[in-house]
Amino acid sequence: MTTTTIPTTEDATSFPISPVNRVKRTPDRGRYDKDTVYAILDAALVCHIAYVIDGRPYCTPTSFWREGDHLYWHGSSASRMLRAQAQEVPVCLTVTHVDALVMARSGFHHSVNYRAAMVYGRARRIEDAAEKLRLMDAFIDRIYPGRSKLVRPPTPQEFKATAMMGMEIETASSKIRDKHVDDEEEDYAGVPAWSALYPITQVLGAPSECARQLPGLTRPDGMADFEPGTPLDEVMAKTYRRTFG
Amino acid sequence: MTTTTIPTTEDATSFPISPVNRVKRTPDRGRYDKDTVYAILDAALVCHIAYVIDGRPYCTPTSFWREGDHLYWHGSSASRMLRAQAQEVPVCLTVTHVDALVMARSGFHHSVNYRAAMVYGRARRIEDAAEKLRLMDAFIDRIYPGRSKLVRPPTPQEFKATAMMGMEIETASSKIRDKHVDDEEEDYAGVPAWSALYPITQVLGAPSECARQLPGLTRPDGMADFEPGTPLDEVMAKTYRRTFG
Repeated sequence: MTTTTIPTTEDATSFPISPVNRVKRTPDRGRYDKDTVYAILDAALVCHIAYVIDGRPYCTPTSFWREGDHLYWHGSSASRMLRAQAQEVPVCLTVTHVDALVMARSGFHHSVNYRAAMVYGRARRIEDAAEKLRLMDAFIDRIYPGRSKLVRPPTPQEFKATAMMGMEIETASSKIRDKHVDDEEEDYAGVPAWSALYPITQVLGAPSECARQLPGLTRPDGMADFEPGTPLDEVMAKTYRRTFG
Repeated sequence: MTTTTIPTTEDATSFPISPVNRVKRTPDRGRYDKDTVYAILDAALVCHIAYVIDGRPYCTPTSFWREGDHLYWHGSSASRMLRAQAQEVPVCLTVTHVDALVMARSGFHHSVNYRAAMVYGRARRIEDAAEKLRLMDAFIDRIYPGRSKLVRPPTPQEFKATAMMGMEIETASSKIRDKHVDDEEEDYAGVPAWSALYPITQVLGAPSECARQLPGLTRPDGMADFEPGTPLDEVMAKTYRRTFG
C-alpha cells in the first residue's frame, strides 16, 4: 500500500531511503538514484562539510572528489576539521549548484532553481602512505587531468603536513528544482507583477598566466576543457570523465 | 607576549576570537572584523547551514539575509531542518564565494581563491506574527528591492506553511585567499609546468520572462541592478544596500 509519493525503490542503482536522507520539504523534488547524485557531485569543485565537535556543528567549504562510492578531500594536518574527522566522525557533505532566480507573483512562489546533493557517511583519515600519495595525485588530476605528472612531487614535509580524508557514502539524496515561474492559477491574471526567471551560471574566465612562466611553455593538452566562458560545472564534469572515465 | 600571528583585537568592530571561530589552518587568511564578514554575507544569495539532529550533522543550502547582527532564513514548517532549529539549536552558517582556480608548480601549492565566512549562533523560530510578516517581505525585498509591494501577500495557509528562522551572530570568522600563483622559490625555474590562475565568476544571465506575463508590464525600477552579465555577488551587494541602506 502506497502512503507516500516518495519513490521507495532500493536497489544497487539507488540509495536506501531512511529518516536520515528522506527529502521532507517538497518531496517531489527528491531524487535518490545514484546517477543523479553522482552527476551533481562530479560537476562540483567545492562542497560544504558539516561535522560536530563537542556538540557544536561546523560547516566548512572544501574541494573534494568521488571515486566509486567514496568521497575524498584534503586539508592541513593541523586543521580543526581534519583532526575532528580523524576520529571517524559522522559527516554530511553537501554540494549545491545554483541555476536560476525565479520571480513569481506571490512571495510564496518565489524560488531558486538548483541541483543539490547531501551525502552521509563517516570520515576517516587515510593513513596508508601509498594510498595517500595516490590520492594526492588523483586530487590534482581530478581538476587538471594529467597534471600530477607535470608538477613537482610532494616533499616529505608537504606529505606530512597534508591530511587526506575519505568517506564511504552510506546514504545520500539529491534535490532538484528545474522549473520556470509556477504561480497559483488565479495570480497569473490577477497580480500585475512582472515575473521572470534569471539564469545564474558560474563561468571560467580567461587564464592569467604566472608572471614567472618559463619561456616556451604552453597550456598542457590535458586542460583542453578549460575554455574561457565555459560553465564551471561543465568543465568539472568533463575533467572528471577525462580522469576517471 | 605575542605567540601567534592571529590578530587578537576584540572590540565593537570585530568578533571575539575563541576556539570556536579561530582560523587554524593558514591563519594569515583569517579575518575577524565585522566589515569583512558582513561584506561576504551580504554579497551572497545562498548559504549552507550545519546543525545537529540526534548527534548527526546535517548541511543544508538555503537563501538567507542579514539585518544588523542577526541572520534570517525561511523554509517549510514541515522541513526537518526548521523543526530541529525551532528548539534553539546551535548552528553554523557558512557562505563561500569561489573566485579562482590557482595552478602551481607543485601539488601542495595548488589552491582556490575564495572569500568564506563562518557564523555561529543559535537558531530560533520567529513566532511573533507581525515580525514574521515583516521578515517575509524583507526576504523578497532583500533580493528584489521593493518587490514585496508588487506581489500578492501571503494567504493564511501560506503564512502558516512558512517558518521564518533567525539567529543572533554570537561569533564569526572569515577566510580569504586573494593571491596569484605562489610557489616555492626554487620551483619557478626548476619545474617546467605551465602555471596560471583561472578566474571563476557566478554571473546573472538574461531574464526569461514568464510566458503568461500580462501585456504592458516592464521590469520594475527596483531591479535596476539586475543587468545580465553582472556577477551575482555584485548584484546581491547592490540590492542589499538598496533595501537595507
